[in-house]
Amino acid sequence: MRAAIISVGDEILIGQVVDTNSAWLGQHLSEIGITVKKSWSVADTHDEITLGLVQALDEADIVFMTGGLGPTKDDMTKKAIADFLGVGMFFHQDTYDRIKRIFDRMGRKMSPAHDDQCLMPDGTQILTNSMGTAPGMLFRHQGKIIISMPGVPYEMKAIMTEEVLPMLSAQVDTAIVHKTIMTTGVGETTIENELSDIIATFPSFLKIAYLPSLAQVRLRLSATGNDKLLLNETVDNFSNQISEKLHDVIYGYGNTSLEKEIALLCTEKNIKIGMAESCTGGHISSKIVSIPGSSSFFTGSVVSYSNESKVKLLNVNPETLTTYGAVSEETVKEMVDGALETLNVDVALSVSGIAGPDGGTPEKPVGNIWICVGNRQNKVTYLLKSGKDRSKNIEIASIYALNLLRKFILAQ
Amino acid sequence: MRAAIISVGDEILIGQVVDTNSAWLGQHLSEIGITVKKSWSVADTHDEITLGLVQALDEADIVFMTGGLGPTKDDMTKKAIADFLGVGMFFHQDTYDRIKRIFDRMGRKMSPAHDDQCLMPDGTQILTNSMGTAPGMLFRHQGKIIISMPGVPYEMKAIMTEEVLPMLSAQVDTAIVHKTIMTTGVGETTIENELSDIIATFPSFLKIAYLPSLAQVRLRLSATGNDKLLLNETVDNFSNQISEKLHDVIYGYGNTSLEKEIALLCTEKNIKIGMAESCTGGHISSKIVSIPGSSSFFTGSVVSYSNESKVKLLNVNPETLTTYGAVSEETVKEMVDGALETLNVDVALSVSGIAGPDGGTPEKPVGNIWICVGNRQNKVTYLLKSGKDRSKNIEIASIYALNLLRKFILAQ
Repeated sequence: MRAAIISVGDEILIGQVVDTNSAWLGQHLSEIGITVKKSWSVADTHDEITLGLVQALDEADIVFMTGGLGPTKDDMTKKAIADFLGVGMFFHQDTYDRIKRIFDRMGRKMSPAHDDQCLMPDGTQILTNSMGTAPGMLFRHQGKIIISMPGVPYEMKAIMTEEVLPMLSAQVDTAIVHKTIMTTGVGETTIENELSDIIATFPSFLKIAYLPSLAQVRLRLSATGNDKLLLNETVDNFSNQISEKLHDVIYGYGNTSLEKEIALLCTEKNIKIGMAESCTGGHISSKIVSIPGSSSFFTGSVVSYSNESKVKLLNVNPETLTTYGAVSEETVKEMVDGALETLNVDVALSVSGIAGPDGGTPEKPVGNIWICVGNRQNKVTYLLKSGKDRSKNIEIASIYALNLLRKFILAQ
Repeated sequence: MRAAIISVGDEILIGQVVDTNSAWLGQHLSEIGITVKKSWSVADTHDEITLGLVQALDEADIVFMTGGLGPTKDDMTKKAIADFLGVGMFFHQDTYDRIKRIFDRMGRKMSPAHDDQCLMPDGTQILTNSMGTAPGMLFRHQGKIIISMPGVPYEMKAIMTEEVLPMLSAQVDTAIVHKTIMTTGVGETTIENELSDIIATFPSFLKIAYLPSLAQVRLRLSATGNDKLLLNETVDNFSNQISEKLHDVIYGYGNTSLEKEIALLCTEKNIKIGMAESCTGGHISSKIVSIPGSSSFFTGSVVSYSNESKVKLLNVNPETLTTYGAVSEETVKEMVDGALETLNVDVALSVSGIAGPDGGTPEKPVGNIWICVGNRQNKVTYLLKSGKDRSKNIEIASIYALNLLRKFILAQ
């Protein structure tokens, strides 16, 4: 099944918005064995949407459209599709009721423009949008499928995950078996070199992809064929070989994250954790709090962004700050002691560094970030030497810190 | 002059890489008055590249191609262009000499694959790549222009900035003037209704676009024409009318954010701020810390995720928690008092709510989030009623809280 993607919106063409939807769609479609043949970005006009649709249907069996479904007038997709299919519009009462419930809950009034959102081209199969007002729509046309979804990424993802992907994967007859292995701390080239002997023995129907993000590389094994049992066995077999080889840098499998792994470990071992964050400014805590139910093991954090708050809230010795500086092994150790005490937790994590772009010195350049994890008996420290980009430094430091925390809890 | 963009590469179609080049090109071309009519992502094959080129030249006067020029075997763009133009290849000695100098400097040997990088279709106008080995190429074909550049973003940007944009802006006579207005707190439909009278008086060369994200809407005014003075005056005039009308919900202009505006205000008014975060778990603090130099006005935060930490670190009265609960107006007020004291700041912000997906009750459903901002004299509180999605609730609460903080500081 060949797919095409059409992203509708002037804001994409003039570069005010980076189109991340197409990449997400490409990734998730390829995981269920559907190949994206081409993708388009087109302007928000009736003619351009129609032309895009004609071209896409010429080259693909299924066309995914994102954008152009909002309640304001610059949104043209629905009208263009109805005209292309040569059908009229009907009022979809269920959508109206759902939008009304959302507005009632927020204590707001619906406007006439929201009524327009309930108009659908005749023959529309509604795809429920659990995250917003405009529903997704599916059309069947001359043996092909057109799917139109809002351009807001989390709304599109909800419709795809809850409605479209389950439906499509049931229709695809070639099986694809995926397994994802999550690593952190080494680059993709190093991993590729480490694995070259194993990869040389892969059967032809097994592929590996390296999906790098900041300080992490996801390895995705994909086996394609008709014999699902064989595919599963093959993926498991090679996943085990890879796990043995890369043991030290693997932190989980499948749809996981460092914070999810930490949540599982804390719950299993009944360990309470807390943080003392300086340069990461609450970023690590907010990752932990993104996990539902984190209140059962996460007590809180002190974001000690000034020396004063390090002394007052974490009981760091002022002399330590004067002698060694806020960015030092000694300070992060005292921050852990302070967090253990103040937050009354079993294990604490601390971070202090120079995030940049300014503030570095020859001895302590921008990107030098000290991390400490410990309990009342012992502590582990790590000096991360990162680059000059502030947001990258904060993200990389958070990932290194969470991984250090994960390993520490694992060893308890 | 109508432009089209073709991004070449399977890695884009399967979503392994997000295409940021097209957005960058769209933005910089529209700034010099060139409209991107459409963009494509195509697979790394001779046929798909050729088909893309045919379609793009059919709809545009100038075609920008990125990707497919590297030294590895899967890069096909150059061969496809030569065949499309019906020309042979020549060896470009200057490029060879330049690549050799780069390798000599790094102490590395050139491989045979790099020799291939010096082969160019006959008639190529070379565009120097100051950031990498593969040069950009310009072709003139039946009155139209084809520009091919590497897909590596910083190499493409170097070629565009140093070679292409100066050349094109000398040729373009249409100008485009953009202005962006940032709003928060109301939906795009409400804004459109509010502005309908003003928009009805827009001249035909002025357009408005609504670009929504969570709890925010960006308004973009675009004027196109030959008389740049008139365009600037028109955009300014209508931007003023819109600003007067939407006064309450506008927080800034151009490339700004709530946290940037807060940073400017704190610096200007010499105000120090701190936070007491419960359900947002450090997310608001991390937004503030994302701004370089925030240590000059941001002292720190207490992420009080347990009742115990609210009492111990923020001095919240245990009776308040028992009587009114952690998610209450009374508690967020006491959290602000605690933060003002503990963090020794002028203005403090607090948030406590039920982020979900579980933990709600009939009286306090998931999505109920109390926010308080205040100084030692007075406090403002707000009850946000959001939905059931945890990550959305945290993001929306953070935006509402930052906006409340911004308004409070503005009034000081």
